[in-house]
Amino acid sequence: MAKKRIGILTSGGDCAGLNAAIRAVTRRAIDGFGWEVVGIRNGTLGLISEPIEAEILDKQTFSGVLLRQGGTFLGSSTKGDPFAFKMPDGSVKDRSMEFVEGFRSLNLDGLIGIGGDGSMKILNRLCELGDIPFIGIPKTIDNDVALTEFTIGFTTAVNVAVDALDRLLPTAASHHRVMVLEVMGRDAGHIALHAGIAGGADVILLPEIAYDMDKVAEKIRDVYENEKRSHALVVCSEAIKTSQGQTVMHANEEGKMNYGGVGHEIGGQIAKMTGADTRVTVLGHLQRGGTPAMRDRLIASAFGVRAVDLMAQGKTNCMVAWQHREVVDVPLDEVVKRYKKIDVTGTLVHTARGLGICLGD
Amino acid sequence: MAKKRIGILTSGGDCAGLNAAIRAVTRRAIDGFGWEVVGIRNGTLGLISEPIEAEILDKQTFSGVLLRQGGTFLGSSTKGDPFAFKMPDGSVKDRSMEFVEGFRSLNLDGLIGIGGDGSMKILNRLCELGDIPFIGIPKTIDNDVALTEFTIGFTTAVNVAVDALDRLLPTAASHHRVMVLEVMGRDAGHIALHAGIAGGADVILLPEIAYDMDKVAEKIRDVYENEKRSHALVVCSEAIKTSQGQTVMHANEEGKMNYGGVGHEIGGQIAKMTGADTRVTVLGHLQRGGTPAMRDRLIASAFGVRAVDLMAQGKTNCMVAWQHREVVDVPLDEVVKRYKKIDVTGTLVHTARGLGICLGD
Amino acid sequence: MAKKRIGILTSGGDCAGLNAAIRAVTRRAIDGFGWEVVGIRNGTLGLISEPIEAEILDKQTFSGVLLRQGGTFLGSSTKGDPFAFKMPDGSVKDRSMEFVEGFRSLNLDGLIGIGGDGSMKILNRLCELGDIPFIGIPKTIDNDVALTEFTIGFTTAVNVAVDALDRLLPTAASHHRVMVLEVMGRDAGHIALHAGIAGGADVILLPEIAYDMDKVAEKIRDVYENEKRSHALVVCSEAIKTSQGQTVMHANEEGKMNYGGVGHEIGGQIAKMTGADTRVTVLGHLQRGGTPAMRDRLIASAFGVRAVDLMAQGKTNCMVAWQHREVVDVPLDEVVKRYKKIDVTGTLVHTARGLGICLGD
Amino acid sequence: MAKKRIGILTSGGDCAGLNAAIRAVTRRAIDGFGWEVVGIRNGTLGLISEPIEAEILDKQTFSGVLLRQGGTFLGSSTKGDPFAFKMPDGSVKDRSMEFVEGFRSLNLDGLIGIGGDGSMKILNRLCELGDIPFIGIPKTIDNDVALTEFTIGFTTAVNVAVDALDRLLPTAASHHRVMVLEVMGRDAGHIALHAGIAGGADVILLPEIAYDMDKVAEKIRDVYENEKRSHALVVCSEAIKTSQGQTVMHANEEGKMNYGGVGHEIGGQIAKMTGADTRVTVLGHLQRGGTPAMRDRLIASAFGVRAVDLMAQGKTNCMVAWQHREVVDVPLDEVVKRYKKIDVTGTLVHTARGLGICLGD
Repeated sequence: MAKKRIGILTSGGDCAGLNAAIRAVTRRAIDGFGWEVVGIRNGTLGLISEPIEAEILDKQTFSGVLLRQGGTFLGSSTKGDPFAFKMPDGSVKDRSMEFVEGFRSLNLDGLIGIGGDGSMKILNRLCELGDIPFIGIPKTIDNDVALTEFTIGFTTAVNVAVDALDRLLPTAASHHRVMVLEVMGRDAGHIALHAGIAGGADVILLPEIAYDMDKVAEKIRDVYENEKRSHALVVCSEAIKTSQGQTVMHANEEGKMNYGGVGHEIGGQIAKMTGADTRVTVLGHLQRGGTPAMRDRLIASAFGVRAVDLMAQGKTNCMVAWQHREVVDVPLDEVVKRYKKIDVTGTLVHTARGLGICLGD
Repeated sequence: MAKKRIGILTSGGDCAGLNAAIRAVTRRAIDGFGWEVVGIRNGTLGLISEPIEAEILDKQTFSGVLLRQGGTFLGSSTKGDPFAFKMPDGSVKDRSMEFVEGFRSLNLDGLIGIGGDGSMKILNRLCELGDIPFIGIPKTIDNDVALTEFTIGFTTAVNVAVDALDRLLPTAASHHRVMVLEVMGRDAGHIALHAGIAGGADVILLPEIAYDMDKVAEKIRDVYENEKRSHALVVCSEAIKTSQGQTVMHANEEGKMNYGGVGHEIGGQIAKMTGADTRVTVLGHLQRGGTPAMRDRLIASAFGVRAVDLMAQGKTNCMVAWQHREVVDVPLDEVVKRYKKIDVTGTLVHTARGLGICLGD
Repeated sequence: MAKKRIGILTSGGDCAGLNAAIRAVTRRAIDGFGWEVVGIRNGTLGLISEPIEAEILDKQTFSGVLLRQGGTFLGSSTKGDPFAFKMPDGSVKDRSMEFVEGFRSLNLDGLIGIGGDGSMKILNRLCELGDIPFIGIPKTIDNDVALTEFTIGFTTAVNVAVDALDRLLPTAASHHRVMVLEVMGRDAGHIALHAGIAGGADVILLPEIAYDMDKVAEKIRDVYENEKRSHALVVCSEAIKTSQGQTVMHANEEGKMNYGGVGHEIGGQIAKMTGADTRVTVLGHLQRGGTPAMRDRLIASAFGVRAVDLMAQGKTNCMVAWQHREVVDVPLDEVVKRYKKIDVTGTLVHTARGLGICLGD
Repeated sequence: MAKKRIGILTSGGDCAGLNAAIRAVTRRAIDGFGWEVVGIRNGTLGLISEPIEAEILDKQTFSGVLLRQGGTFLGSSTKGDPFAFKMPDGSVKDRSMEFVEGFRSLNLDGLIGIGGDGSMKILNRLCELGDIPFIGIPKTIDNDVALTEFTIGFTTAVNVAVDALDRLLPTAASHHRVMVLEVMGRDAGHIALHAGIAGGADVILLPEIAYDMDKVAEKIRDVYENEKRSHALVVCSEAIKTSQGQTVMHANEEGKMNYGGVGHEIGGQIAKMTGADTRVTVLGHLQRGGTPAMRDRLIASAFGVRAVDLMAQGKTNCMVAWQHREVVDVPLDEVVKRYKKIDVTGTLVHTARGLGICLGD
């Protein structure tokens, strides 16, 4: 096989396990195939910057330390859609061809992009535009990328949320309080559902299931009256809908600070409707960072190795995915068309209901 | 020595290590002296409730599990000042004699109270009123009780804050952001100072040192321009003062929800003054809970054993304290007159400045 | 549906997440169906004891605390095969009918047993003998039960092993040492393979792949000479085979202490063959305990709810299993006939090789 | 003040927090005084190597990442006594003047050495020999350096041991076992005493208190018979003495593997004398590594800043120390003459006894 030179970038919100994936790509490409790997800085921005921000990665970059570190040492960006790039003067410009030219100027034979749902769509279009052999590696704390059981960063994020519930329970019990925890998940409630079940929540509110505040209050009252305890844990996703169709959202727009949204709204209503002493915690950016969980390091490593293998086989324009204990590859077109919401008829929703957890309906 | 029967209660905001102290008191009283120990529920409330809420504690209550658990299994209350008790109808009533009568009705020979600064004052007055032999054990995540190096709960709270900084650093670095972390500490900034140094903060804002926003912005700019990194960590206490004497506070009044205060104020100004992409995290109740840190379990155990010993020696109306690797006893009168703020000429402030950390001045 | 009364027991070596499964079974049975749940103490021993050791479980037993606690509050036993019970005098006795009679004396309609491979076989035979409707829930830190992707306790055990590698790396690097970590896994190397990949090992030795000591030494030398670092991490399962067919085992027989076995053997050979300063750590019982990982709590909860549902549907003599993000039920006969070893052609073995990890061959 | 150029090295067994101290020294020297800092590799070895192994440290070396990382990125050595250097041929040679010459060849104005008891003695002699201005920073997981309340690395080591006890308790309880945990501490039992109290041990064996096996067995029997639980936790230091004066030691000599010693001896005797099912865990090198505890980062930072300040004031040949919440400096002569054993009449021994913990006597 001809010696190749491939690029790698991380795009969108950061999470834990990205460095493990970059490490795996680099090790596999160098050791397995003798290729050269170029790390592109700050997602798509690195290729449209002047000068281009990129560097050759070698194996020594990847000490065991990096494997254990959250975030991405290449940097990432949430502002890098080259098709609709926001210029400093506020105007929006199509810079997609600059991306393609940046890529070509590096003399690369292919691109591996680590990103979420949104990034996959953009990278897919960019690579079609530039006829760039592309392989995607799915990451996002929200776990909402289609066709893969796990995305990089999801397990760490849920662990952080469970850890928070483990810390909130004793203080809730000591002061007979309701503790509301707002977690990330704007379109899919995977973090809330996993963390709520594992962390012993009494109520879990999700984007996928419209909630009725009367049901929530009824559950809290039932806990206080019938379970011989006077404290409760509530987990809610950052964007949920009432059963009347209203959306309640976390007010965290791009560039804005994290003022309370959903969590405080729900907490305020619980306090008003039940009289329970209620406190709210917004987990926010804590969910992104820190030492990656074992599973995130594991799937990141598996994804990275397989992505290079696929590139070597010339099987591109696909995304690696985790299905049934194995890494597989799935067509990018299929991925970007779909979206992985919680299956409301699936095991975890059934488990939550079976444990007596109120899902707001 | 005559067989005694003593009461124990936990008062004020909960923290990690309270159960370890109750365990030590109970073990020492039963095994060492053959006494009976009565656990009073929900702080001072347990003695003014009808009926009185209390139970005899035995050694079996205290499995190793309890030692490892945050909060207080006896319950606590932040609303239990019997001298100025807020009645359901909104009126304020002096219920101090009810407390004394409640105590007497349990046939107790003495009281051990675990509390912070405020609780010590109230318990001291109550015990003077009722001529109750009293020994205090200091706890508070804020570490602001006079005459003791450590209070129960402080180390755990700082650990949680450092853990948060460890999680925020990788995401700050990945996205070139300033991360602001608001921690507890209304009157004393011990959590912020300890966590900021240990967690590698660039800026630490404390109640004890008035801050000048220009200095903060200058530091952030310096980091971005001169330290070859484009991210920074800022820690601020929940109540700080500007150099013009204005107070900026966390809006968390009793019974209110945790809407953002200081953290968002500071974050907003940093964003405005430096243009840096800034995010804010309010740690809140996460600091109270969870598995107690080693040192909290250790001093709680030492405090509990010594409190019983002092009761056995008839040496009461004092508080146990940690000084220079030993537990000592200090007069309650001295404790309640003073307040342990950060020594702005001490080692840690000097260390922070020596590391180049901006303290706002 | 008629009101039922079901028994639940935990059998074999303990692990993290058992309490979460018992909690889920109890909550679902009581809340969902109004049944009674009887907890049997110490695995099969509880039913052949005189008197029988069992108790009615109620929902209040299962505070959030228990969900977070390792081990099994019902107790377990590794010595409870009633078909070949070792009597105090050393003789072996068939006590299987005592088990059946014990079960009947409790007036139970069915049994839910949480156990590993060995326990499933024994419980299956006992229930056939006594015509007892039985549902199995798979647990074992080794993850070697057939037909399920995860067993309860596995994720926690791997996390502990990764945590150990995270602690060993800095000291290895500081002193230029090879650190050998021996983990559990007598017949299947899932812990070693998962932990080794996620923890950045250079060598992983598994029961499924015979090792050649020359290859191991060659890898260590290569790391020292070509990777610009003079330290390495080696993970080995507690029972492995040389390429000449000899078995090297951890000398931990039933009732014996944990004297070093495999780890020290491998470490000694590495030191001898490469001259590298080598140290050995045997992780042992640390892998069983502690706060359960999120995933263990999650699948334990899902398994517990489903086991009760199956009992309600009269679908017994099966085991619940995790397959492709869902809980399913599989025939017990199929489970006990098979054994889940590492798939040496699967994703993780390929990933390990792709990262340049030496698997001994 | 004249611009200086100082050297820094870490000597002896590594521990968590060393990087935090190097970071603080470098930041203070550069930012505070405009000095140059030279990092010497592998303890004293770096100066007697050919060529000398050293490098100029700059502030950028010390990202927040390094603060959070265990071990020492400069490397250390336990084999570097230049006064009695073991040569490859087995002979012993005095290489102390080579050290002095190495130091001089780097044009350094002073040396900051981070080490334990043994390293302080050697470095003190070397610096007297070479008339080198020297300041020591105390580190050792054993906490046995005189005149300082804390040494760098101690808190992390105790935390690891407590964490181990937290993991051993649930499995001990599930299987009704005695769990023996062997921790480090050859001459002083600080780790064992701190961890044993904080981790809820029933027995703690220390180098400072000769043990009587009958007392240990009696305690275990008492726990099983009178405390309504049938499990126990035992912590022992790696070198202890029987009341007949025999020494029982961990067989871990320099260059040897960690075969079981004390822990297995004690475990074997408990099993024999009480019949209790007993298991042993040797914690070993896990105690050295991992993310440093908050307190280790904190005192390391304070020590590093102060050491540079002292150098600037020309106050050398001393060691920084932590006393009563402040960093102070103490004469090196005093430090190396003494040794900090556990005070058997102090608070922690009294606390242990007060909790009913058997100390073997």
